[in-house]
Amino acid sequence: MQAEIVSIGNELLNGRKVNSNATFIAASLAGAGIDVERVTACSDRISVICGVLEEALSRSDYVLVTGGLGPTADDRTKKAVMKLLRRGLTFDVGAFDNLVTRIRKFGRELSPSMHDQAMVIEGAAVIPNTKGTAAGMIIGCGPSFNNHTLILMPGVPVEMKAMMGLTVVPFFEKHTSSAIVHTQLRTAGIGESALSELIEGIEEALFQGTELAYLPHVAGVDLMISTRGSEKDAVERENRAVTDAIVERVGRYIYTEGHRSFEETIGNMLADAAKSVAVAESCTGGLVASRLTDVSGSSAYFLQGFVVYSNKAKETALGVPAELIEKHGAVSEEVARAMAFGCLEKSGADLALSTTGIAGPSGGTPDKPVGMLCLALAIKETGEVRSKTLFMAGDRAQSKFRFSEAALRELWEYLKHLEHERL
Amino acid sequence: MQAEIVSIGNELLNGRKVNSNATFIAASLAGAGIDVERVTACSDRISVICGVLEEALSRSDYVLVTGGLGPTADDRTKKAVMKLLRRGLTFDVGAFDNLVTRIRKFGRELSPSMHDQAMVIEGAAVIPNTKGTAAGMIIGCGPSFNNHTLILMPGVPVEMKAMMGLTVVPFFEKHTSSAIVHTQLRTAGIGESALSELIEGIEEALFQGTELAYLPHVAGVDLMISTRGSEKDAVERENRAVTDAIVERVGRYIYTEGHRSFEETIGNMLADAAKSVAVAESCTGGLVASRLTDVSGSSAYFLQGFVVYSNKAKETALGVPAELIEKHGAVSEEVARAMAFGCLEKSGADLALSTTGIAGPSGGTPDKPVGMLCLALAIKETGEVRSKTLFMAGDRAQSKFRFSEAALRELWEYLKHLEHERL
Repeated sequence: MQAEIVSIGNELLNGRKVNSNATFIAASLAGAGIDVERVTACSDRISVICGVLEEALSRSDYVLVTGGLGPTADDRTKKAVMKLLRRGLTFDVGAFDNLVTRIRKFGRELSPSMHDQAMVIEGAAVIPNTKGTAAGMIIGCGPSFNNHTLILMPGVPVEMKAMMGLTVVPFFEKHTSSAIVHTQLRTAGIGESALSELIEGIEEALFQGTELAYLPHVAGVDLMISTRGSEKDAVERENRAVTDAIVERVGRYIYTEGHRSFEETIGNMLADAAKSVAVAESCTGGLVASRLTDVSGSSAYFLQGFVVYSNKAKETALGVPAELIEKHGAVSEEVARAMAFGCLEKSGADLALSTTGIAGPSGGTPDKPVGMLCLALAIKETGEVRSKTLFMAGDRAQSKFRFSEAALRELWEYLKHLEHERL
Repeated sequence: MQAEIVSIGNELLNGRKVNSNATFIAASLAGAGIDVERVTACSDRISVICGVLEEALSRSDYVLVTGGLGPTADDRTKKAVMKLLRRGLTFDVGAFDNLVTRIRKFGRELSPSMHDQAMVIEGAAVIPNTKGTAAGMIIGCGPSFNNHTLILMPGVPVEMKAMMGLTVVPFFEKHTSSAIVHTQLRTAGIGESALSELIEGIEEALFQGTELAYLPHVAGVDLMISTRGSEKDAVERENRAVTDAIVERVGRYIYTEGHRSFEETIGNMLADAAKSVAVAESCTGGLVASRLTDVSGSSAYFLQGFVVYSNKAKETALGVPAELIEKHGAVSEEVARAMAFGCLEKSGADLALSTTGIAGPSGGTPDKPVGMLCLALAIKETGEVRSKTLFMAGDRAQSKFRFSEAALRELWEYLKHLEHERL
């Protein structure tokens, strides 16, 4: 079964609004095992709406439409559907009752334009609107449209979402027979190309019915393994087999199976290992601390952060010797190590992470170019301080984020090692 | 002139990704005076891409495509365009140079799949990629496609955005005959509804040819005043008149005319006032420091940050008395003031900003609910410490951002006052 989404509204064409309604509908349909073939956003002119709906109905079993059901002059979806299907309107008692109840609740007067919202396309099954006044509709379009189905919903997100949850998704679940399983693997520290080279064979040998998608974002690449078939057990087995094969090849880059963020993953590992952490940041300017504290409950393991932008702050807040900065420069592994060590001492944490580098665009030299990062991890238990130097590209914002990512990765690698030892 | 946007990628059809690329492109085109008729998101199957592009090229002068130019097996846009236009690929030296430079900079090896990214459609003008490796293309499609034009860009937002700004928008500006002037006013500390009430009259009395758009984002609302007409001088005059009328009404909320960020605006004001700043953060966890240091050259005025998540850190790093925390609680104006004062002392800065609050989702009480923020600004010159308590809604990430915004706003208000005194 195949579906399309049509989003109506000029605000989607002039950049004033992101089409997040379509994303929500697509996610809901994916969960119900329905493929979305296409998403179209178009203007609210009647001729345009008619054209887009006619094309969509010719291709797809189900066309889900949002927008243009409200009471104002630019709400023209019903008029377009009347014209396309050559049908009239009929008064729906249930929709009218809902309308009157809601209007009374808000102490408003019933105006004629509101009354129109209880008029529905002839032959439509009404989708109750539990969050607003405009009625939704499920319309069988008859033999001229291959008996395909049109589903009309308002564009107001909260009304559409309630309709999807209470009526539309259950409607699809009744009509679908196929099973679908998705597994997400999130990776860090490897790019899309390198990843695809490592799992190239698997991708080609995939079971029919299983698809592998790469979803790159600024911090890493997510792998989505999707399997579909008629029998639920077989679909789950097949999806697991492909997932396992991928994990075997690139497991060292995978930080989670599922939706957890890198920060949450690290937070859980810190909590499991009963280790506290503190950070000392120069070039990342507080971003590492901010990311670690994006996780609810992070106060259990995150103690303290030092943003030491100036040399003086490095000296006074962390006790980095002025001579060390003088001799090696603020961007050096030596200073990164002294920062991590000072951070460990001052905070009393079990682990201390430090960054010093050049985020650019200015401040680079031939020896120490923009994109250079020195980081260190100090470990109270062993007295060890690990450090490394990395080079990355990007504008200032990207570099800062990648620097923070590299620092978090260092912490993650150490926590993995601890986990390994415990097992 | 009419354009369409085609976004390629299965992640746009299964609800895993919001199509914010299309929104960005639509906004940029609106800015260049180009109308977008339709936005289509489709899967990455070659037959589907061919079908969608053929339809779009039959309707619209320009078809802007994002996605499917990367190096992996699911990047199929070039193959589809080759099939549709019956053209081959050609090696582009400039694109290859860019590729090699970027790869060397990262210290990586050049793999064959990367090399493919320098192969472009025959007859295409290459759009340089200043943020990545895949080349973009502007392709005249010839008489079989009514001489319409196809513009291919990568789906990675930062790469697409750079291409739009540096090459595609200037390309359209050259091809359009009408004059268009935009003025952006960026506001902080006021919502869309309140803003529209304050400037309501102006909006209705706008000159024909001038449009006012509200562009709300997580931190505030940008106002875009766009004027279009045939004569450049008249267009500029009209745009200025409307802009001035708006500034007169809501000037106190406007932090910049143009594109400068709030952080940059504050940075410039600090530099102009020759004041240094340090921050002490609890609930914002380093985000205020990170935002201030997002600005290149911020080391000139940003001295130091303290992320004091635990009570102990508040005591040891900033000298906040334990009894004060005991008596008023960590989330209190009293503690915020002590944090700001301690931060001023320890850092030696001219100004110190502090935050303590409850970002949630847990940790709230009836007295101190989730979303409560206490902030303070300590001023060395006068010995004054200003503090306030605010309440905001939102999930953890939104709250953290809004907290950081409120703190920056406090600093901005003070710097405005200083500026005023100097004049």
